[in-house]
Amino acid sequence: TRSGVPEAVLAAGKTPSEVAALASTSVETTGRAVVTRADDAVEDAVRDVLAADHPDATVDADGRSGVVVATTPGFERPDLDAAVGVVTAGTSDAVPAGEAAAIAREMGATVERVDDVGVASLARVVDSLELLRHQDVLVVAAGREGALPTVLAGLVDVPIIGLPVSTGYGHAGEGEAALSGMIQSCTALSVVNVDAGFTAGAQAGLIARRIDAARAGR
Amino acid sequence: TRSGVPEAVLAAGKTPSEVAALASTSVETTGRAVVTRADDAVEDAVRDVLAADHPDATVDADGRSGVVVATTPGFERPDLDAAVGVVTAGTSDAVPAGEAAAIAREMGATVERVDDVGVASLARVVDSLELLRHQDVLVVAAGREGALPTVLAGLVDVPIIGLPVSTGYGHAGEGEAALSGMIQSCTALSVVNVDAGFTAGAQAGLIARRIDAARAGR
Amino acid sequence: TRSGVPEAVLAAGKTPSEVAALASTSVETTGRAVVTRADDAVEDAVRDVLAADHPDATVDADGRSGVVVATTPGFERPDLDAAVGVVTAGTSDAVPAGEAAAIAREMGATVERVDDVGVASLARVVDSLELLRHQDVLVVAAGREGALPTVLAGLVDVPIIGLPVSTGYGHAGEGEAALSGMIQSCTALSVVNVDAGFTAGAQAGLIARRIDAARAGR
Amino acid sequence: TRSGVPEAVLAAGKTPSEVAALASTSVETTGRAVVTRADDAVEDAVRDVLAADHPDATVDADGRSGVVVATTPGFERPDLDAAVGVVTAGTSDAVPAGEAAAIAREMGATVERVDDVGVASLARVVDSLELLRHQDVLVVAAGREGALPTVLAGLVDVPIIGLPVSTGYGHAGEGEAALSGMIQSCTALSVVNVDAGFTAGAQAGLIARRIDAARAGR
Amino acid sequence: TRSGVPEAVLAAGKTPSEVAALASTSVETTGRAVVTRADDAVEDAVRDVLAADHPDATVDADGRSGVVVATTPGFERPDLDAAVGVVTAGTSDAVPAGEAAAIAREMGATVERVDDVGVASLARVVDSLELLRHQDVLVVAAGREGALPTVLAGLVDVPIIGLPVSTGYGHAGEGEAALSGMIQSCTALSVVNVDAGFTAGAQAGLIARRIDAARAGR
Amino acid sequence: TRSGVPEAVLAAGKTPSEVAALASTSVETTGRAVVTRADDAVEDAVRDVLAADHPDATVDADGRSGVVVATTPGFERPDLDAAVGVVTAGTSDAVPAGEAAAIAREMGATVERVDDVGVASLARVVDSLELLRHQDVLVVAAGREGALPTVLAGLVDVPIIGLPVSTGYGHAGEGEAALSGMIQSCTALSVVNVDAGFTAGAQAGLIARRIDAARAGR
Amino acid sequence: TRSGVPEAVLAAGKTPSEVAALASTSVETTGRAVVTRADDAVEDAVRDVLAADHPDATVDADGRSGVVVATTPGFERPDLDAAVGVVTAGTSDAVPAGEAAAIAREMGATVERVDDVGVASLARVVDSLELLRHQDVLVVAAGREGALPTVLAGLVDVPIIGLPVSTGYGHAGEGEAALSGMIQSCTALSVVNVDAGFTAGAQAGLIARRIDAARAGR
Amino acid sequence: TRSGVPEAVLAAGKTPSEVAALASTSVETTGRAVVTRADDAVEDAVRDVLAADHPDATVDADGRSGVVVATTPGFERPDLDAAVGVVTAGTSDAVPAGEAAAIAREMGATVERVDDVGVASLARVVDSLELLRHQDVLVVAAGREGALPTVLAGLVDVPIIGLPVSTGYGHAGEGEAALSGMIQSCTALSVVNVDAGFTAGAQAGLIARRIDAARAGR
Ligand SMILES: Nc1ncnc2c1ncn2[C@@H]1O[C@H](COP(=O)(O)O)[C@@H](O)[C@H]1O
Ligand SMILES: Nc1ncnc2c1ncn2[C@@H]1O[C@H](COP(=O)(O)O)[C@@H](O)[C@H]1O
Ligand SMILES: Nc1ncnc2c1ncn2[C@@H]1O[C@H](COP(=O)(O)O)[C@@H](O)[C@H]1O
Ligand SMILES: Nc1ncnc2c1ncn2[C@@H]1O[C@H](COP(=O)(O)O)[C@@H](O)[C@H]1O
Ligand SMILES: [Mg+2]
Ligand SMILES: [Mg+2]
Ligand SMILES: [Mg+2]
Ligand SMILES: [Mg+2]
Ligand SMILES: [Mg+2]
Ligand SMILES: [Mg+2]
Ligand SMILES: [Mg+2]
Ligand SMILES: [Mg+2]
Repeated sequence: TRSGVPEAVLAAGKTPSEVAALASTSVETTGRAVVTRADDAVEDAVRDVLAADHPDATVDADGRSGVVVATTPGFERPDLDAAVGVVTAGTSDAVPAGEAAAIAREMGATVERVDDVGVASLARVVDSLELLRHQDVLVVAAGREGALPTVLAGLVDVPIIGLPVSTGYGHAGEGEAALSGMIQSCTALSVVNVDAGFTAGAQAGLIARRIDAARAGR
Repeated sequence: TRSGVPEAVLAAGKTPSEVAALASTSVETTGRAVVTRADDAVEDAVRDVLAADHPDATVDADGRSGVVVATTPGFERPDLDAAVGVVTAGTSDAVPAGEAAAIAREMGATVERVDDVGVASLARVVDSLELLRHQDVLVVAAGREGALPTVLAGLVDVPIIGLPVSTGYGHAGEGEAALSGMIQSCTALSVVNVDAGFTAGAQAGLIARRIDAARAGR
Repeated sequence: TRSGVPEAVLAAGKTPSEVAALASTSVETTGRAVVTRADDAVEDAVRDVLAADHPDATVDADGRSGVVVATTPGFERPDLDAAVGVVTAGTSDAVPAGEAAAIAREMGATVERVDDVGVASLARVVDSLELLRHQDVLVVAAGREGALPTVLAGLVDVPIIGLPVSTGYGHAGEGEAALSGMIQSCTALSVVNVDAGFTAGAQAGLIARRIDAARAGR
Repeated sequence: TRSGVPEAVLAAGKTPSEVAALASTSVETTGRAVVTRADDAVEDAVRDVLAADHPDATVDADGRSGVVVATTPGFERPDLDAAVGVVTAGTSDAVPAGEAAAIAREMGATVERVDDVGVASLARVVDSLELLRHQDVLVVAAGREGALPTVLAGLVDVPIIGLPVSTGYGHAGEGEAALSGMIQSCTALSVVNVDAGFTAGAQAGLIARRIDAARAGR
Repeated sequence: TRSGVPEAVLAAGKTPSEVAALASTSVETTGRAVVTRADDAVEDAVRDVLAADHPDATVDADGRSGVVVATTPGFERPDLDAAVGVVTAGTSDAVPAGEAAAIAREMGATVERVDDVGVASLARVVDSLELLRHQDVLVVAAGREGALPTVLAGLVDVPIIGLPVSTGYGHAGEGEAALSGMIQSCTALSVVNVDAGFTAGAQAGLIARRIDAARAGR
Repeated sequence: TRSGVPEAVLAAGKTPSEVAALASTSVETTGRAVVTRADDAVEDAVRDVLAADHPDATVDADGRSGVVVATTPGFERPDLDAAVGVVTAGTSDAVPAGEAAAIAREMGATVERVDDVGVASLARVVDSLELLRHQDVLVVAAGREGALPTVLAGLVDVPIIGLPVSTGYGHAGEGEAALSGMIQSCTALSVVNVDAGFTAGAQAGLIARRIDAARAGR
Repeated sequence: TRSGVPEAVLAAGKTPSEVAALASTSVETTGRAVVTRADDAVEDAVRDVLAADHPDATVDADGRSGVVVATTPGFERPDLDAAVGVVTAGTSDAVPAGEAAAIAREMGATVERVDDVGVASLARVVDSLELLRHQDVLVVAAGREGALPTVLAGLVDVPIIGLPVSTGYGHAGEGEAALSGMIQSCTALSVVNVDAGFTAGAQAGLIARRIDAARAGR
Repeated sequence: TRSGVPEAVLAAGKTPSEVAALASTSVETTGRAVVTRADDAVEDAVRDVLAADHPDATVDADGRSGVVVATTPGFERPDLDAAVGVVTAGTSDAVPAGEAAAIAREMGATVERVDDVGVASLARVVDSLELLRHQDVLVVAAGREGALPTVLAGLVDVPIIGLPVSTGYGHAGEGEAALSGMIQSCTALSVVNVDAGFTAGAQAGLIARRIDAARAGR
C-alpha cells in the first residue's frame, strides 16, 4: 500500500464470519491476509472460508499472539536487509510483543526476540546488550511500571519504540503507568498505545524499510 | 509526641507571621520548631519573632530544601543508632530530598546523601550500591518516569521508600507518572505523595527509631 | 534473592499450567514456591505438577487470601526476631491483608492479625492500641475512604504501611479514594498500590529483616 | 426567596464595580446584600457604592472568610431556634468554614464554631463531642485526606455535611482526596463541593429552618 | 447505635452465607437485620439461616431495591413525626431510590415517593411541587446529567440531598456527570456518592430524627 | 471559504504583532479580519498595523467578548434570512456567548440575545420561550452544572448547541461538569468545547446559511 | 412532542418485558414506538406484546443498529423536504450510525448513508464530497482518533455533527480520544456523546425540520 | 555518548547560573553544550559564563525554540547522510518543532522544515507530499485535535513520529487530545510526550544515525 504497512483485519469487535470475508477479499486482492487479535473461532472461520474461496492458500496462526496470516502460493513477502529486535520484560508481555514481531516479519524484517529481561534482573539485561546493539530498531514491551525501555535506552544507541502492556492492577493499572512512564522517560523513546503491538511492529517495519533501502543504495 | 514524629509547621498556605507565631509556640513547648516549605519571607519572620521571644534559640535554615529548624540551647535532639540513605536521580529532586533528609535528621537518624544516580547512568548507580547496602532504610527521590527506586530495589535488600518528584511536563507530568510507576513497581517499594519529603523522611525516621531500639536491646 | 524478597508467581493473567510450571521450577531452584492470586484451578494445577515433580513437597493453600506456598522437606524458612502487625478495617479487607500476612510470614516475621477495627467503631481501635504498639511495623488495610491508617498513625509510633483495598463503588471507588486518602494523609504513612498485599507484606518483611539483624547485633 | 436561601453575589470572576452594583440592587430590593469570596478591592467598592446609594446601610466584612454583608436599618434577619455547628480540622479550613458559618448565620441559625479538632489529635475530638451533640446539624470542614467528618459521624448522631477543603498537593490534592474520601465514607455523610462553604452553610440553614418550624409547631 | 443509623450489611462482595451469618447476629443483638444490595441468592440464604436461628423472625424483601429486612416479633421500629420525600427522574433511578426509601423507613420516617418527574417533562415537576413542599427533607435521584435536584432546589425550600444514579454511557457516564453536576449546582444541594441510596436515606433519616425531636419538644 | 466559516485569528498564544500581521493579511486577501480572544494590547496592535497598511479599514472591537473585526469599505458581509438565538444562564457566560454572537453575525445571521435565564429562576426561562421558539437555532451558554440547555431542549423544538462555560471550582470545575452534563443530557443537544464560543457561533452560522438557502429556494 | 423529537425507549438497563410494555403504551398513545439498543430478546418481547395488544401494528427491526420501530396502520410519519447524510469511517461505526439514521428517518428526513470513508483512504473521502455537499446536515461517525469529521469540515460547508464511536483500546480508548479530538477540532463541529447515535440523529432531525419549514415557506 | 543522544541541559526548573555551570562543564568535557527551554536570562547567563570559561566558544541561540548551543572551535558536529523532515500544522507548533529540529541537527541530520500544513487546508498538505516522501523520517507537530500526523501517515510511507503540542483549551486541552488522538491513530505512528521536541528530535536523530550507517555500508 501507499503507506507501506500491510492492511490488517482487527478481529476484535467483528464476528468471525465478518473477519473471514474481509480476509478472503484481502487474499483475493493482495495475495495475503493478516488478521490480528484472532481467537480460535476467528481462526476457524478464516480457515473455512479460505478453504472454500482460496483452497491453495496457506494459513499460519500464532495462538500466543493472536495473529493469523494467509498467503497464496504466488505471494512474495518482502525481504528486507534490516533487523528488528523485540524485547519483553516478562511473560505477560508476550501477546503484544508477538503481534509486533509478526507484523515486522510480514513487512520483511528479520526479527530477533529477547525475552524476560525485566528490570528486576539487571544481569539478564546486561547479558543481552551485545545482541540488542546489532539490531536496527528495537520494540521493547513492558507492563506494570514499564521501566525496561528507559533502562535500555541508556545502554544502547539503537532507536527504541516503547510498547506499554496492560498488566498491572489498581491505580494507573492496565498499562497506564507503563505508558506514562515511557512518555515521561528522560531518554529518547517514542511510544505507542497500550498493547498496540501492531502499531509498534508497523513503525519498526517502516524504519526497517528505510534502512533496507539505504543498504541497497536506494 | 505520641506518634513519634516532630510537629512541623507547613508554611505553604500560611502568612509569615502565622508561621512565626506557631514556631514560637513550638519552641516554647517542645524546645524546637520545624518549619517546612519556608521561603525567605517566612524564614525572616521566624528569625524576627524568635529573636524577640527566645533570644537564645538557634535558627538553622536550609534554603535549598525550605526547612527551618529552631532549637533552644537546652534542647536535646534524639540520637539514633540507625542510618537513613537519601538518594536522588537528578538535581531537580534536591528540594523534596532535602526535606526528607532534614526530618530524618531531626528525628535523630544519621543521614547519608547519594545524589545524581539517575537511571540513564547505570554505572553511577552500580558504584553507589556498596554505600546504599549499609543504610537501614532508603528514601529514593525521582521525577519524570521515576524508575530509580525500582532499579535500586532490584539491587539491594534495604527497605526503600519511593519519593516521586513533581518534575516532568505534558501527559502525567508534575510527578503523576513517577508516582504511578512507583506504585506499579514489580519490586517491593512503599511510596509517599509527590514531593512529600516530610512524609518520606518521617516514615524513614520511624523505622530508624525501631532499629535503634532493636540495637539498644529495647 | 539479592533483593531480599522471595520470588512469587503472580497467577493472575497466567494459565494454571503456566503457573504450575513456574512453581515447580521455583521449588527446584530455591526449595520453595510462592504463588499469589491463585484460584482453585491454579491450586489444583500446582498440586498436580508438584505431586509429579516433587512428590515430597508440602503445599499449603490459604483459600481466603489466594496464596499457595510449596516447600521441600529440606527448605528452611527464615526465622526473624521481629513482629509485623496486619490490621483490617472490615471483612472485605481480608484478601489483601491475608496476602500481606502470608508474604511477611514467608520472609520469617512473626505476624499478628488485628481485624475489624474500622474507624466507625473507635472503641475497638482504642482497645487494640496496646497490642499494636508492640509490633515493629504495621500493615493497615482499609477500603472505602481508607481512614484507618491515618487514625492509627496518630495513636502509635510504629511505622505504618497503608494498604488501600478495592472496595467502594461510584466516584473514586475501587480503592482510588482509599489510596488518595492515604497518600494525602496528614500523618507519616507510606503506601502501596490498591490490593497490593504482596508489596505491603514484602516491604514489612524487609523492615523486619533489618530489625532482626539489629536485634542480632549484625 | 422561594428557595429559602438568601441571594448571594459570588465576587470571584466579577469586577469590583460589577459586584458593588449587584450588591446595591440587592440592598434595594431585599434590605440585605451578601457577597462571598470578596477581597479588599471588592469590599472597598461595595462600601463606596453603598455609601452613595444607601448611606444608612451597615456593612460588615469578615476578611478571613471573604464574606461581606450589608443591611439596611430596617432589615430583619430571620432568627431561628436551631443550632448549626461548624467544625474545622485545622487552620487552613478557616476560609470555607467561615463562609459556611456566615451564611448559616444570615439564614438565622445560631452558629457554634469548634476549631482545630483534626484526626491527628483524637483527644481534642473526644473533648468536643458533648458540645457537638447539642447541635442540630454539623458542617465539618477538612482538607488533605478529609477524615474528620467520617470519624465524627461514628461518634455523634447529628446529621453531618462534609465540606472538603482545597489543601493538599500532589496526587488528588486540591481537595480531591478529601471529597472522594467523604463521598466514599462508610458513614452517613452528605457532601458539598471542595471549598463550597456557601453551599454547606445554606444546606445547614435550610435544615435549621425546618427544625425551627418544627420547634415552633409549624 | 450511637451514630443513629442502623447497622446494615452490604451484601455486595460477600458470599450469601457470610451475609446470612451477619444478618443472624444482627437479629440476635438488635432484633433487626438490614441487608442492602441483596440478590435472590442472598435473600434465600438469609431466609434459610433465620428460619433455623430465629424461626419467629419476619423477613421482608424488596426485590426492586435489593433491601432485605428481618425483624423479631418484639422489635419496635422507631416511629418519627417527620416526612422524607424520595423523588426519581426516571425508571432507572428506582433501585437507589428504593434503597434510600427503605433505610429512611427503617429509621422511622414517613416516606413519600414521587416518581418519573424528569426535567424533560417540567409539567410533571410543577404538578408535584405542592406535595414536595410538605416534606421535611427530600432525596432526589437522577442519572444522566442529573439536573432534577438542581431544578427542584430552585422551586422548593426543603433541604435536598442529591442522589446521582449510575445511568449514562460514554464520557462521564456511570453517574459521574450526575455527581459532578449536583456538586457544581448553583443551588444549595448536598450530595452522596453515585447509587448510594443507603447513605442518602440514612442522612435523610438523621435529619428526620432531629425534626421529630424538635416536634416532640426534645 | 470552502468550509463556509470565516478565517479567524485566535489571539491567545500569539504576540500582538503576530496577530496584527495575520489580521492585515486577512484584510488584504478577504476584505475582513476576525480576531478572537483579543486583549487590549492585541486590539491596539491590530489598530496600529491596519492604520498603516489599510488606513480605510474600519475596526470594531467588543471588549466584553474579545472579538475584533476589521473590514475594508468594500467588504460585503453576507446577509442571511435566518435567526440565531444566543442565550446565557448568567453574567459569567457573557464572554463565550459574545464570541458566538459575533461569529454568527459575521456569517450574516440575525442574532437575538436572551440573557440571565438561569435554571434557578424558571419563571424567566418560561417568559423567554416565545422569543426562543422563533429562532432557527439556539446557542445556549451555561457554566457550573450547565443545566440550562437541557431544560430549554425540553421546552422548544429549535435545535440547540450547548456551550459549556468555564465557571465553577473544585471537583469537575472549569466547565467540565457543564460539558459532561450537556453531553449526557437526556435531550437532543449537540455540544462544543468549554468556552468555545467561536465554534458554537460558527456551527450556528452554518445552519443559518442552510436555512437561508432553503428560504431563498436554493 | 413539544420538543420535536419522538419519544424513544432506551432498552439498555430495562428488562425485555418492561421495554415491551413501554412500547405498547407508546403505540397506544402516539401510533408509533421507537426502541433503541434492543437485542433479540427485547425485539421478541416487543413483537409478542404488540401481537397481543396491537395486532395490526407493523414492527420493523434493524438488527445492525438495534433500533425497533412499531407503527399502527394509521400512523403518518412526518415527511420532510430535507436531507441528512450519515457518514462512517469504518465498519465498527455502523451501530451508532445506524441508530442516528433510524432516528432521523423517523423524524421524516431523507437519509443518505456514505460508509467506510476513513481518513486512511483520503481518495474515498474526496470521491464522496459531491454527494456530501448536497446534504443539509451531516452526522459523521468515527472511532479511534476520530479525525474524519475534522477532515470533512475542512472540505464541505454543510453543518457537521461529530459522533464519536467507542472503538479504540488502551489510553483514551472507548471513544474518549475521538470525543476529545472532535471537541478540540480546529473546525466548526458540534459533537454528541460517545455512541450517542440517538442524540446525533435527533439533532440532525431538528435541523432538518427547520430546513423543511424554510423550504415550505413556513 | 553511549546512548547516541547529546547530553542536553533542560533549563526549566533550574536557575540561570545552575544552567550556565552545567553548560560550561559540558563544553569542557565534550566540546559542546546543548540547553533546551532557555529564556533570555538563561541565554545571558550561559553567554557570560562561557565568555569567562571558554572565550573561544561560539554560542548560537534560537529564541523561537528556546535552544542554545555552544561549541568550541575544535568541536566536530556529526554529519549524517540522512534527512529528517519537521512538519507543523500551525504557528503555535513552532516552539516544539524548533526544538526537535535543533536536536536532530546537532545529531548531524539534514533537517527540512515544512510549515503550516494543517488538516483544514488539505491542498497545502497534498502540495508538500513530494518533499515529505524524500525524507528518511518525519517529526509531525500538531496541537488541538492533532490530526495531521494521522492524515500524513495515510499518504506517505516514511516513518512518522507524532509530536503533540500543548495548544487547545477546555476539555482535553493543553495537548491531551492531540496526544490521545495520535496514540489512538489508525495508522502506524509512534508518539512522544506533549511539547517534547527534544525527545522527538532525538528519536529522529537515532533513526538518522542508523540510516547513515546503512548508507555508509556500516
Ligand atoms: N499479588 C502480587 N501483587 C503484586 N506483585 C506481585 C504479586 N505477586 C507477585 N508479585 C511480584 O511480581 C513478580 C512476578 O511477576 P510475574 O513475572 O508476572 O509472575 C514477583 O517476583 C513479585 O515481585
Ligand atoms: N448499599 C450501601 N451503600 C453504602 N454503604 C452501605 C450500604 N449498605 C450498608 N452500608 C454501610 O456499610 C456498612 C457495612 O459495611 P460492611 O462491613 O462491608 O458490611 C454499614 O454499616 C453501612 O454503614
Ligand atoms: N476562540 C476560538 N476558539 C476556537 N477556535 C478558534 C477560535 N478562534 C479561531 N479559531 C479557529 O482556529 C483557527 C485559527 O487558529 P490559528 O491558526 O492558531 O490562529 C481559525 O481558523 C478558527 O478555525
Ligand atoms: N526539552 C526537553 N524535554 C525533555 N527532555 C529533555 C529536554 N531537554 C533535555 N532533556 C533530557 O533531560 C536530560 C537532562 O535533564 P536534567 O538533568 O534535568 O538537566 C537530558 O540529558 C535529556 O535526556
Ligand atoms: Mg516493567
Ligand atoms: Mg527518574
Ligand atoms: Mg475504611
Ligand atoms: Mg483532614
Ligand atoms: Mg436526569
Ligand atoms: Mg448553569
Ligand atoms: Mg477514525
Ligand atoms: Mg491539529
